[in-house]
Amino acid sequence: MNTQRPETEDPTLEADVFARNCTSRPVLQNVASRWGTLALVALRAGPYRFSALRRRVEGVSERMLSQTLQGLERDGLVHREVHQAIPPRVEYTLTDLGGQVAEHLEALIQVLELNMPRIRDAQAAYHRD
Amino acid sequence: MNTQRPETEDPTLEADVFARNCTSRPVLQNVASRWGTLALVALRAGPYRFSALRRRVEGVSERMLSQTLQGLERDGLVHREVHQAIPPRVEYTLTDLGGQVAEHLEALIQVLELNMPRIRDAQAAYHRD
Repeated sequence: MNTQRPETEDPTLEADVFARNCTSRPVLQNVASRWGTLALVALRAGPYRFSALRRRVEGVSERMLSQTLQGLERDGLVHREVHQAIPPRVEYTLTDLGGQVAEHLEALIQVLELNMPRIRDAQAAYHRD
Repeated sequence: MNTQRPETEDPTLEADVFARNCTSRPVLQNVASRWGTLALVALRAGPYRFSALRRRVEGVSERMLSQTLQGLERDGLVHREVHQAIPPRVEYTLTDLGGQVAEHLEALIQVLELNMPRIRDAQAAYHRD
């Protein structure tokens, strides 16, 4: 820890993810995390129950998905609704803001998916050189 | 390791980041990583030398920035140019594809930065409940 640079956050500053202590940085990190990205984009299709979302986001553990959703809920990007039933039914949906964020993430993913042949060529060339 | 699910990648499949073994997943992870995101968006402003980029992306270590740029170069998103000089001058620029990716990342970041007051309200409400 560098004592010259306080880790405290100043909420009166305008948000700037390039600034070390900006409060927007941890939000971006959660959104852009491995499972955050996939969970947000999956939820564009509509509400999901935890177990169905876990099947959709292949490879995520219960613990990681749960942590990821908690972070997204805390930041106001995902809404968690508990429906009274036996057993209680818990559903996750995107908030308005979560929807905006997920739209950009999906556009990003589409660029990557569409360009995978090009990306694989670049990888092959990189490893050849 | 689950032996039922091979970790090998099949390049003939259409890319799908939701699929566990898709080759697009590690690419997305590098792009959406903490430093990958900031490096790509910073490079939208034009070419950067390593040390200047490191100053721009506050808080990144030499090692992490170097690893991040290597991954982005391997995937064809960043171009590394060595100019003959003493000492040699190394500059990083976005490729066309890197530019497309960075555009979506910047849009995402803008949504988050603009909505930080709302996100902070959500965080306060979450911790109050």
